[in-house]
Amino acid sequence: MTGTLDKTGRATASVNLLAGEIVDRLAAGAERYRVAVSRGSLGELLIDAGAKVAGGVDAGLLLTEICLGGLGKVTLAPAPGQTNWPFWLTVTSNDPVVACLASQYAGWSLSHEKFFALGSGPGRSLARKEPLFQELPYEDSASRATIVLEAGAPPPEPVVAKVAESCGVSPDKLAFIYAPTQSLAGSVQVVGRVLEVALHKAHELKFPLEHIVDGIATAPLSPPHPDFVTAMGRTNDAIIYSGRAHLFVRGSAEAAKALAEKLPSSNSRDYGRPFAEIFKAYKGDFYKIDPSLFSPAEAIVTAVETGETFRAGAIDEKLLDASFG
Amino acid sequence: MTGTLDKTGRATASVNLLAGEIVDRLAAGAERYRVAVSRGSLGELLIDAGAKVAGGVDAGLLLTEICLGGLGKVTLAPAPGQTNWPFWLTVTSNDPVVACLASQYAGWSLSHEKFFALGSGPGRSLARKEPLFQELPYEDSASRATIVLEAGAPPPEPVVAKVAESCGVSPDKLAFIYAPTQSLAGSVQVVGRVLEVALHKAHELKFPLEHIVDGIATAPLSPPHPDFVTAMGRTNDAIIYSGRAHLFVRGSAEAAKALAEKLPSSNSRDYGRPFAEIFKAYKGDFYKIDPSLFSPAEAIVTAVETGETFRAGAIDEKLLDASFG
Amino acid sequence: MTGTLDKTGRATASVNLLAGEIVDRLAAGAERYRVAVSRGSLGELLIDAGAKVAGGVDAGLLLTEICLGGLGKVTLAPAPGQTNWPFWLTVTSNDPVVACLASQYAGWSLSHEKFFALGSGPGRSLARKEPLFQELPYEDSASRATIVLEAGAPPPEPVVAKVAESCGVSPDKLAFIYAPTQSLAGSVQVVGRVLEVALHKAHELKFPLEHIVDGIATAPLSPPHPDFVTAMGRTNDAIIYSGRAHLFVRGSAEAAKALAEKLPSSNSRDYGRPFAEIFKAYKGDFYKIDPSLFSPAEAIVTAVETGETFRAGAIDEKLLDASFG
Repeated sequence: MTGTLDKTGRATASVNLLAGEIVDRLAAGAERYRVAVSRGSLGELLIDAGAKVAGGVDAGLLLTEICLGGLGKVTLAPAPGQTNWPFWLTVTSNDPVVACLASQYAGWSLSHEKFFALGSGPGRSLARKEPLFQELPYEDSASRATIVLEAGAPPPEPVVAKVAESCGVSPDKLAFIYAPTQSLAGSVQVVGRVLEVALHKAHELKFPLEHIVDGIATAPLSPPHPDFVTAMGRTNDAIIYSGRAHLFVRGSAEAAKALAEKLPSSNSRDYGRPFAEIFKAYKGDFYKIDPSLFSPAEAIVTAVETGETFRAGAIDEKLLDASFG
Repeated sequence: MTGTLDKTGRATASVNLLAGEIVDRLAAGAERYRVAVSRGSLGELLIDAGAKVAGGVDAGLLLTEICLGGLGKVTLAPAPGQTNWPFWLTVTSNDPVVACLASQYAGWSLSHEKFFALGSGPGRSLARKEPLFQELPYEDSASRATIVLEAGAPPPEPVVAKVAESCGVSPDKLAFIYAPTQSLAGSVQVVGRVLEVALHKAHELKFPLEHIVDGIATAPLSPPHPDFVTAMGRTNDAIIYSGRAHLFVRGSAEAAKALAEKLPSSNSRDYGRPFAEIFKAYKGDFYKIDPSLFSPAEAIVTAVETGETFRAGAIDEKLLDASFG
Repeated sequence: MTGTLDKTGRATASVNLLAGEIVDRLAAGAERYRVAVSRGSLGELLIDAGAKVAGGVDAGLLLTEICLGGLGKVTLAPAPGQTNWPFWLTVTSNDPVVACLASQYAGWSLSHEKFFALGSGPGRSLARKEPLFQELPYEDSASRATIVLEAGAPPPEPVVAKVAESCGVSPDKLAFIYAPTQSLAGSVQVVGRVLEVALHKAHELKFPLEHIVDGIATAPLSPPHPDFVTAMGRTNDAIIYSGRAHLFVRGSAEAAKALAEKLPSSNSRDYGRPFAEIFKAYKGDFYKIDPSLFSPAEAIVTAVETGETFRAGAIDEKLLDASFG
């Protein structure tokens, strides 16, 4: 057994070891994935997947599977209906709560002086620094760690040292993979959060995480943009205005119905215009944006104990066109 | 060579060895796939994929590939058109007759006292107990065997002993994987029969199996239901009212045209209402249901020797909504 | 490092080694993929994937990934909208210019007396005999080579000798995989060129290849036909009348817009009727056909340096129906 016991005594897989296999594959195939591999000043492994390299959609798919702690799959398929944006990502996971919240969620603030980044990926479940982990029993104990950064540069030395210490690994056992939002791999990696965003919103709505049995979600691949705010806006809009998530949950039909109704982004007071416009309207203060905006456009929730399915929200192609340009 | 020669002297792969690799992967990844692995009283390997464990969609996809004897792939993608059920399974196979009929078809009656189950999976082609095998030249000779059961409990000892003996393997070389119809993995596994059902119906229509060259099929993932009859109804309705199969066949255009016209479920006298209603109308006597109901909603048949394609049937979204709730 | 340095000093993966792994997998699984493996008179490896064997769609998918030099993935998913042709191929690549143009493009004339074939696959980038390579810096230096032929028979001895010499490998290190256009694997392999055709057209339009960062494309699986001209027509029509390609390019918005507008097949004077009819109208003289016809029906081009996306062309379902029958 590679992981540890969770608080209920259940044995768990190690998200850092599972993701580590994909990291090793990406590093070994650096040429074919068009990423750059190097070692930082403390010996940490650095993989640039879109800053100074071409990277690409395929590198982004691997990056997303690393974010999911090796517990999920991301595939690309033709769009489900008539749309101007013909390729969509689909995210599945064998264990969505662990994959999306204990690993993929970009919740670890790793800023230092002018370096601003939110850490994502399995290393978070070794460090367990965020309040979210008080409600997540999952804990990893692997001897290697991986953090993914939506960033255009590797982390500065103090961040590397802090992460290594928090994860309980030496820096040479620590990998950082980074790609800016403006890159192809970066945009794939963010749109690949369509399932995570649904789970995080469910958590914000106080839906018990242990009742979430399974989930699948899909969203259109967003076209990159050289401007950070526009690029960030597009990746968010892919989810907010065209993401579809189907969750399978335990518990009462009432709870499932309430979850479906409250989950879609259309419940947010900020819903209705491209994310970049909203961001500018709040003068770039991210924390003034209504957090309930961050969720898929359409939610489908099946209560597996009653067999009922509830749905709310809808894809808004016009807003997607307005955002993607 | 791992298999044996078929009656035409053609060398064949071993469905039990190919599926065995997937069984080993599922067992080794028990934590991440949320399945439970144990040994039964005779030493048989038992994998619970949905009875007392969470299992899930991903476990169900592996279960389906085990049913297909390692000769097929099952993927999940966004639905092809406007639908309330946004995720569909697609089944392809390198050798559909062997994969679907010699392995996946749930045709081996393994009931004992109060235990009722139909055995599916590659072990069937070692035992070859069913009349169907008189027309299927394929025979496996592997020294390990796997049987998949749509059931909520492992098989009782006499069933294990009978299967081991029939397959010519010792019980410790025998694996049973089970998931009830009400579970996520169970429902994936049954909907994953959409191609098999098309092949079985073709066989019932006396279409020569050796003329079936290839096939692909798709159907919506059905939401589980805690009631067995409703759950069973939904998995069947996914195929009967929304399954699409494309077969590639040798022989005359007339034979292909007749096959396309007769294949769709709409040819059945019982077509037109959810399967659970039909089942109840026959007072739960499965064998009173018109067997021709068990087939995809839409059939496309290409006669590869003439290049003509014939089609019949159609997806019925309203009936799907009525069934899935 | 398995490849060589390109002219810009960039290290590259070896398309022959990457594809070789898939060749080895196909050969080892000959039974399950229903292909025939043998050795020719000079010791060359021969894999028949559709001439005297059943082959099939799955063998065709592997064949396409071999053509792509191991740098691409091909998947099958339900069609994106309402269509009579429900299964579509999607092609992605980590490095589309190398995968599609240095490997997949069928540009090496390997005819000899009555044997007529255009060589495709990674061996081309060892031989580098075509003018196209003057503009492609990629060069492989692997000690094994693979060539894919859209043909119903293996190449004659002089062709084997010529290819081995041109690739700088001994014949026993050379593999030929062949499937006629009329076979299932053959038709998959040709439709799987939907991304390559977009890149090749971009090159014909003098768009700088080094500006093409990434690409994805999709097209319907075409039904085989026993007549060569009709079969060839269908595979071409799948791309010409229903292919969709999305390219991500560097450079100005003007250049991206011009590329999108000129890329679709509808710009060709020969656009508007099934390919087989066009071919017959030119009395079978392939070289009289307007080369600009060979491109996807719909092009989407994103200028990654400005964030703008341009589109032109459209899928023509009626022409697809007219061609596929």
